[in-house]
Amino acid sequence: MENNKRTELSDLGEFGLINRLKEKVVLRHPETQTGIGDDAAVIENRNELTLVSKDILAEGVHFDLTYTPLRHLGYKAVAVNVSDIAAMNGIPKQIVVGIALSNRFSLEAIEELYEGINQACEDYNVDLAGGDTTSSRSGLIISVTVLGEAKKEEVTYRSGAQVNDLICVTGDLGGAYIGLQLLEREKQVFKQDPEMQPQLSDKEYVVRRQLKPEARMDVTYDLKELKIKPSSMIDISDGLASELLHICKASKVGARIYEDKLPVDSMTFDTAREFNLDPTTVALNGGEDYELLFTVNQSAFDKIKNHPDITIIGHITEYSDGVQLITGGGNIFPIKAQGWVHF
Amino acid sequence: MENNKRTELSDLGEFGLINRLKEKVVLRHPETQTGIGDDAAVIENRNELTLVSKDILAEGVHFDLTYTPLRHLGYKAVAVNVSDIAAMNGIPKQIVVGIALSNRFSLEAIEELYEGINQACEDYNVDLAGGDTTSSRSGLIISVTVLGEAKKEEVTYRSGAQVNDLICVTGDLGGAYIGLQLLEREKQVFKQDPEMQPQLSDKEYVVRRQLKPEARMDVTYDLKELKIKPSSMIDISDGLASELLHICKASKVGARIYEDKLPVDSMTFDTAREFNLDPTTVALNGGEDYELLFTVNQSAFDKIKNHPDITIIGHITEYSDGVQLITGGGNIFPIKAQGWVHF
Repeated sequence: MENNKRTELSDLGEFGLINRLKEKVVLRHPETQTGIGDDAAVIENRNELTLVSKDILAEGVHFDLTYTPLRHLGYKAVAVNVSDIAAMNGIPKQIVVGIALSNRFSLEAIEELYEGINQACEDYNVDLAGGDTTSSRSGLIISVTVLGEAKKEEVTYRSGAQVNDLICVTGDLGGAYIGLQLLEREKQVFKQDPEMQPQLSDKEYVVRRQLKPEARMDVTYDLKELKIKPSSMIDISDGLASELLHICKASKVGARIYEDKLPVDSMTFDTAREFNLDPTTVALNGGEDYELLFTVNQSAFDKIKNHPDITIIGHITEYSDGVQLITGGGNIFPIKAQGWVHF
Repeated sequence: MENNKRTELSDLGEFGLINRLKEKVVLRHPETQTGIGDDAAVIENRNELTLVSKDILAEGVHFDLTYTPLRHLGYKAVAVNVSDIAAMNGIPKQIVVGIALSNRFSLEAIEELYEGINQACEDYNVDLAGGDTTSSRSGLIISVTVLGEAKKEEVTYRSGAQVNDLICVTGDLGGAYIGLQLLEREKQVFKQDPEMQPQLSDKEYVVRRQLKPEARMDVTYDLKELKIKPSSMIDISDGLASELLHICKASKVGARIYEDKLPVDSMTFDTAREFNLDPTTVALNGGEDYELLFTVNQSAFDKIKNHPDITIIGHITEYSDGVQLITGGGNIFPIKAQGWVHF
């Protein structure tokens, strides 16, 4: 906590807390009619479809507060939800936020968390429309539900990939996982010698990938501008391999992707090596990058080939071909999901 | 747990669990286009407004698994959310369910929880449209977001109460709180002597009020049929006193309610006496009844006076009069919120 002042939540009470948080909420969409302060938020429907998604972040499972600033955590809780709307090719509009927290958190801590939430609302142009704040016996749980909207013909499902479609990813992969390894290593160093300063100054990019991921709404908007509708799309939360398998299963197709096409940032690559990790494995199975994985018809090739944030990594094949990685050496490996086993 | 079989969630994995739960989901509304299995649920907008509300139930705060059957808990998690839509005079349509749970829960336990969720979906005619299931470091957290719909002119806010409006409540009050006292007492008895059998057989009503509350959608439908639109409405989750103060504050009015009009079930009354509790205090401040508190224009009196589940408990006054309880003896007491202090 940067702030030294500590106000106990018990002095404020639930309604007092809600009022404090409410003061800083800005509503950006005229269709968000009522925010916090009634039994439900009221939203005027201006488009054909409403998209709804929900992601929970649990302390000790999804984040470790010894190295996660609450501001980043609040931001991330919104970003990972917005990412789900981006993956449906929709526009996020509102979020409702549920927080369960123990009394070890002060008002100042919660306000820091909400600073991040509000910043993300600004960056992604969404309204904080309501929520529920309660106590928990231990730990912090953040449950965000996001509402988005789309026209019927715009929505991209996981199930639309067609044979010969190009397989594309945004940004680069594996950075968030490597950032996590670094943070965990520094935590262990700090445990053994609290005088040690963390050595992360030259690793800013991958650390940020872990602590403050961004939803790729920018690419969603670019694709709309380019008049490209992906045939299928998913966001990469559990790792490329897992998400590609989801698309292939839902679309009843196979896929072939190429190891030397996988976009891996040089810092991710080098740091993976430091940890004796295979950069390709990290790119395939490292989670939490929140990049988009999508397929497009080959006719879109000219439009996307020079997009700086889109990489074509392979193509869709027949279902019977399975899901394959072609290594740099030309070998064929079947791709299996690893993803994250929470339990 | 009634079922003796225990399947570890770790053997099943997150996707395995989702698939198991998905099998039992029934979608009842054609506008719920996609349920579980994509990045977001897709909902076709058939009405002007979408209502959104969210309530979290946290183990050790909102429920105690030593006496709460998981089936009832799942049901309650849905009912308390539907209640928020009822309080806006809307129709609930979809829920998304977030669960964070530790590995002390087995697949069978989660399936029991979802049995209750699915039962509530059936009873309230809502679709389980998606969600997120993850692990927690300890304890069980259930976070439900409900979507409802309404026509613009139908929505009832907390802010619409007018001077001279009648103040009405549905059902009876204080039962859930008394049920909780009984369950806590039996828990203590059991702790001291595990051989003791719980003495709750003749207290079924109040125990059910606590463990398996119902949202008063039936009254919402009745009011629509009677062509009555409440001027303001709220559901009673934190106690009548607290909710009445919310309405008065939002509507900038005062209120006068009468002690001898407060609907208190005879079992609630008698059991309160057993606990040396004042039944009026219990009715005013006992939470979790999930009845509706609403105001209507006096012209609606003839239509509602004989409704078996609606009681007129007072009327709205000028703001400067404050919020008052008139006791059976004719004394005037100012009403102050107690509600529930979670922190």
